[in-house]
Amino acid sequence: MTATSAPARLALTMGDPAGIGPEIIVRALADASQVPSSVLVVGDLPVMRRAVAMLGVRLPVAQLETPDDTAPPGAMAVWQPPGMPGHLIERAPGQVHADCGRAAAACIEAAARLALDGHVSALVTAPIHKEALAAAGVCYPGHTEMLQAIAGGPPVRMMLANDELRVVLVTIHVALRRAIDLVTQDAVLDTIRIAHRAALAWGRPAPKVGVAGLNPHAGEGGLFGDEELRIIGPAIAAARAEGIDAHGPYAPDTVFMRARHAPGHPGEFDLVVAMTHDHGLIPVKYLGVERGVNVTLGLPFVRTSPDHGTAFDIAGRGIADARSLKAAIAWARAAQPAAAGLS
Amino acid sequence: MTATSAPARLALTMGDPAGIGPEIIVRALADASQVPSSVLVVGDLPVMRRAVAMLGVRLPVAQLETPDDTAPPGAMAVWQPPGMPGHLIERAPGQVHADCGRAAAACIEAAARLALDGHVSALVTAPIHKEALAAAGVCYPGHTEMLQAIAGGPPVRMMLANDELRVVLVTIHVALRRAIDLVTQDAVLDTIRIAHRAALAWGRPAPKVGVAGLNPHAGEGGLFGDEELRIIGPAIAAARAEGIDAHGPYAPDTVFMRARHAPGHPGEFDLVVAMTHDHGLIPVKYLGVERGVNVTLGLPFVRTSPDHGTAFDIAGRGIADARSLKAAIAWARAAQPAAAGLS
Repeated sequence: MTATSAPARLALTMGDPAGIGPEIIVRALADASQVPSSVLVVGDLPVMRRAVAMLGVRLPVAQLETPDDTAPPGAMAVWQPPGMPGHLIERAPGQVHADCGRAAAACIEAAARLALDGHVSALVTAPIHKEALAAAGVCYPGHTEMLQAIAGGPPVRMMLANDELRVVLVTIHVALRRAIDLVTQDAVLDTIRIAHRAALAWGRPAPKVGVAGLNPHAGEGGLFGDEELRIIGPAIAAARAEGIDAHGPYAPDTVFMRARHAPGHPGEFDLVVAMTHDHGLIPVKYLGVERGVNVTLGLPFVRTSPDHGTAFDIAGRGIADARSLKAAIAWARAAQPAAAGLS
Repeated sequence: MTATSAPARLALTMGDPAGIGPEIIVRALADASQVPSSVLVVGDLPVMRRAVAMLGVRLPVAQLETPDDTAPPGAMAVWQPPGMPGHLIERAPGQVHADCGRAAAACIEAAARLALDGHVSALVTAPIHKEALAAAGVCYPGHTEMLQAIAGGPPVRMMLANDELRVVLVTIHVALRRAIDLVTQDAVLDTIRIAHRAALAWGRPAPKVGVAGLNPHAGEGGLFGDEELRIIGPAIAAARAEGIDAHGPYAPDTVFMRARHAPGHPGEFDLVVAMTHDHGLIPVKYLGVERGVNVTLGLPFVRTSPDHGTAFDIAGRGIADARSLKAAIAWARAAQPAAAGLS
């Protein structure tokens, strides 16, 4: 697979059929600016048709026999991968069901293989529900870990991004106590490298990477924890020795403010590396999840997703906000395959 | 001491004389809206005179013999407490020095006693430097712990507040690994109670308290840590049994966004209780430290401070931003003594 031979088409997975995934996909594609036929929806045909009917939008649904078929201009192309459970539209919105988890996982696996084999240029994923996945016997805590396994296990990292801030996480879906154990020099250095390569791929000639500490005040010189002195500082030094313009460790409570790109406030860093899920996600989400995009770095293909979950509490009512999914589609369109980092 | 007998006067401590404290005090008091003579600066007279001269502002300095003396209208009242080291103006700005730490501690202790004895209605503190304090043999990690000890050890909590968000912290100046151990049911319940009483004192008839979890996704039902199930959830239930309108535990990465009060975005909670220093401070500081105020809840007097440190890198240059100190003074003026929480 090379960038030039890949069709300029995205695969968009349905997500959990009982969540808001199908309806935000229809909402996003019904907006003419999204050019629906250049997106391949990997999902359940009756579920996608139901979402179109529920929203009352004018969006023809084209059923593709194979993922390489094309849909008429203006239509939503839906390809149903093999191995999908039947009767999914009988499952109530907002309910955990093993069939829904099984269907969501089948779509992700099929779409990831399309991306790996060059049938699509990038992958955008609608939200899944971890309990439904677990009920189906799929024991990944999230998309990131599942895609990493399908891709053969390269080191990958989760990035959250909006217009103001790009944050790459050293640890994600584990207990905070366990996350501290996972903050090793190798893990921090790998994250800095992955962040650096991704920013180079976006066209930053000399990306400046800010690295957050783990402890209050970045340890205050060892008074409040020594991970900065033992682990994070040496990882930054190793990255600098490789020519990466990495800085820190900085106090977690001010580094994101310093990195923020806003009118009249040029950010100091192109990206911030954060040690824990919530240190990194709190500032990205603070101004509203409708603006955020989740990007997996380190995979051999571009993968983005909206910065929110299945929203079971409002699923099936036609009121879900599609802005984050639209931002995820736009990011995937703009990114070159090399943007995924280590490919 | 009662609220009616206390003079409507604030004590304002100088902070570390090598930091930006003296200059932001002069900057704030030179602004006519602050009524300088109603503020008692507890500090070193030559250092305060130097700050006036360096900034070139028209602000007469009145040396008070006792803290109950008054200054002429429009003048800055400075009282030098006993036990101050001499020759402080010979210490270079931006340098750690034991004398500076000793002076900062002497001012805090004297000002706290004035507040405890009813000579002033509230206490505002300029920034101190922990290394200078430690060099002086003063082994408190911050103002909060020092004031708690002077007040006889009541349970106190640190609150960070700006126009949008008020966050009360269960743990503060300890390593993250140790902070997790300190998240006990009693500590969480005490924090909810202190937050609730403070909000009642500000005039909220039925304060709604949002409680953040500790782990990613608030533990995801136990998959990513069990502190929410074992500790935080039961503490919230106990608070509710006492009639407190507490809710949660919520995912740390979205609860602050939900609590944010902004134009067109009414916040869901009056305050948020956060488990760790950085979960709570990242969102308060994200939009700029110049807007934040640090409030100590649970003391028998009102205490506020700016939401930043000594800024040794710019101290003595006259460019420090006094907005957060002004906000801290305004908060202390507006708060009744009962607002401190458990008095």
